Amino acid sequence: MIDKKLVTLLHEFKQIGLTSMGGVTRCVYDDNWILAQKKYVKIANDYGLYCFCDKMGTIYAATSDHISHKSVILTGSHMDTVINGGWLDGIYGVLSSVLAVGQLLQKFGAPKIPLCAVSFSEEEGSRFDTTFTGSRYLTHQLSRGVFDLKDSIGIIFDEERQKRVTELSQVTPIRTPDFKIRSYIELHIEQGNLLEQSHTNIAVVTDIVGQKRLLITTNGISNHAGTTQMFGRADAMQRAVDLMTQIYSSLGMMKGVRFTIGKIIAFPNVANVIPEKVDITLDIRHIDQHVLDDAFEKVIKITDAVGATYRLTTNVEATPMDNQLQQQVINSIKQEKLVGERLFSGAGHDAQVIANSKIPSVMIFVPSKNGMSHVPQEDTAESDLLAGQHVLQRLLYDLAY
Amino acid sequence: MIDKKLVTLLHEFKQIGLTSMGGVTRCVYDDNWILAQKKYVKIANDYGLYCFCDKMGTIYAATSDHISHKSVILTGSHMDTVINGGWLDGIYGVLSSVLAVGQLLQKFGAPKIPLCAVSFSEEEGSRFDTTFTGSRYLTHQLSRGVFDLKDSIGIIFDEERQKRVTELSQVTPIRTPDFKIRSYIELHIEQGNLLEQSHTNIAVVTDIVGQKRLLITTNGISNHAGTTQMFGRADAMQRAVDLMTQIYSSLGMMKGVRFTIGKIIAFPNVANVIPEKVDITLDIRHIDQHVLDDAFEKVIKITDAVGATYRLTTNVEATPMDNQLQQQVINSIKQEKLVGERLFSGAGHDAQVIANSKIPSVMIFVPSKNGMSHVPQEDTAESDLLAGQHVLQRLLYDLAY
Repeated sequence: MIDKKLVTLLHEFKQIGLTSMGGVTRCVYDDNWILAQKKYVKIANDYGLYCFCDKMGTIYAATSDHISHKSVILTGSHMDTVINGGWLDGIYGVLSSVLAVGQLLQKFGAPKIPLCAVSFSEEEGSRFDTTFTGSRYLTHQLSRGVFDLKDSIGIIFDEERQKRVTELSQVTPIRTPDFKIRSYIELHIEQGNLLEQSHTNIAVVTDIVGQKRLLITTNGISNHAGTTQMFGRADAMQRAVDLMTQIYSSLGMMKGVRFTIGKIIAFPNVANVIPEKVDITLDIRHIDQHVLDDAFEKVIKITDAVGATYRLTTNVEATPMDNQLQQQVINSIKQEKLVGERLFSGAGHDAQVIANSKIPSVMIFVPSKNGMSHVPQEDTAESDLLAGQHVLQRLLYDLAY
Repeated sequence: MIDKKLVTLLHEFKQIGLTSMGGVTRCVYDDNWILAQKKYVKIANDYGLYCFCDKMGTIYAATSDHISHKSVILTGSHMDTVINGGWLDGIYGVLSSVLAVGQLLQKFGAPKIPLCAVSFSEEEGSRFDTTFTGSRYLTHQLSRGVFDLKDSIGIIFDEERQKRVTELSQVTPIRTPDFKIRSYIELHIEQGNLLEQSHTNIAVVTDIVGQKRLLITTNGISNHAGTTQMFGRADAMQRAVDLMTQIYSSLGMMKGVRFTIGKIIAFPNVANVIPEKVDITLDIRHIDQHVLDDAFEKVIKITDAVGATYRLTTNVEATPMDNQLQQQVINSIKQEKLVGERLFSGAGHDAQVIANSKIPSVMIFVPSKNGMSHVPQEDTAESDLLAGQHVLQRLLYDLAY
């Protein structure tokens, strides 16, 4: 039913942001991101899809030019990556969906219910301290504060956004998305190792974990490392280490809680100066919202006790996927003569943000080799990549035609 | 005896690298550093001093053009700063010495023993992971490996060095320093609060602490923060926190040991990725070399125990200053009708590197307000700055004329 065009395109997009370490860095609004979104428009137009771009830089590719106020089936994923990330995260769903929608249009003509592929501008939060800005904008969940955020070298989110959307307007019209979303379907790599362990090639996602991400700051007083006596020092690094030790100990005892301190920035970050400020990020996830809330409370108590401050930069509730769509995915898997699983997702996804705005949503997962993701080693067997696209395309056909 | 030219010049040099936070950033071979070294040449030439530059970018300003193989009295300090550091560290000794030597030449003509002021290229180690490259080059203590070091954005030490020395050759000849150093005298701010506490305006330095600086690395395996189970994670951050906790605990119990974890870099440093590598710096100092060696041994045991690796980036022995020069400084202080102290230095200095190559060396300290240094608040009373220069100039006169 589908040729290997998907695999060819995935390899081409891997080159757009390929790093010397073999990973891909394509952060929102960077030079590679703009190249990739433009290439996406080209692919969609070649299938006769109607493209437009919203004010965040998200690209839509629909089977009809007249979807204003219509109810459409939306399918896609995000174009951005983490820093030195893998070659499949996000882009696999982006390309699979535009190919599926385009090929259905070519083969069967206009569907009864319009189909719309989407390439969200940003999901990972790897450049600015915010996540899911593409899908949050679409579903009216974006707070104004996002536009003032700065990246690590001081560039302001909103200035970059305007500049890049203007560039995209050279290849596609800018429009406010005013269609209704009947359902949202996202194909993605698992990023964990459960499918590999169970020797299964595909899964439907039942739930997505809740996630809280905090930026925690300890403060101190900078001074010379050699001349300042130990007694009376106010060392932001020592305070951060104390804080982190307590977090590892406290959350480490909570069953099923996954937590990560992935980022740390010290100021001024010089070997012979006592740090005056240390910022750390803490990412906490759990499938049960109550347990996640408990974990968060524990962290706040520790933060208060050591005199640190925090800001909640991501806060997504544990989210069940739509039951009826889950059943339809299972049907499509069966029709493709594959054996499927039911899994929860430990990663956050645009599908979660969209489901949280009461839109029926579902995800399809394919295996990740060795469960590796967000790293250059991220990979999936070619047959699994294609099987995922087969299932997506069949599902879209069953829902729309 | 001396006018306020010193204070005027200090304020002018403060502008060369002034940051938005009120500090000064003038790292070796950066744009401000080159401006400052060129301005130094101009000042020296205006006094009729004979300048030249060595291959590291250190500038010498001598009372005679014929000092090859002669025995000279060298006096000066370093031109570079830490990041967002103070306005006096290094530059105070650099300017005081060139003014003292220049004014002595103007007033008394050529001395019996040639005097040579020096502005060392680099001492702080704030750009490349190495320190004292100016004075180590002069005293043949520089290892070849230094030239291959990279700064935080990947620029190679040797490429920058060559480029900047070429620029300096526009204003002064490039020569290999082939004079003999009879003695080295360095005037500096205390950077601690002992003089302030004892209400003393000046001090002679008896010893300089030994210092070891390590770059310690923990390793792990990067993976997705949400999909990777806690069990079996190899988290370089958790390992670094464990290591740092043990260091704070172990060294914190050793009397008189000053130690600082000032810098930390995580890779890839992204909130939703488990870190694969964390680098930290550890700076350890003590006046007694045996205690310093003990502290170092303790750290190595901890490092080995947690499976981390280390590289010793700075290793300077605890160093006594020359007894006879100390006595001569005390005499000069008395002649200036000041009351002096004897102090040890908790900070490393070029005088230490030079003394370690068997050259009689001494330092003069003036107070630091609130003991602050390496920060924008670094300051010294104008009267103390001038008193320090008076003592230096008198000492140079007594030694050379």
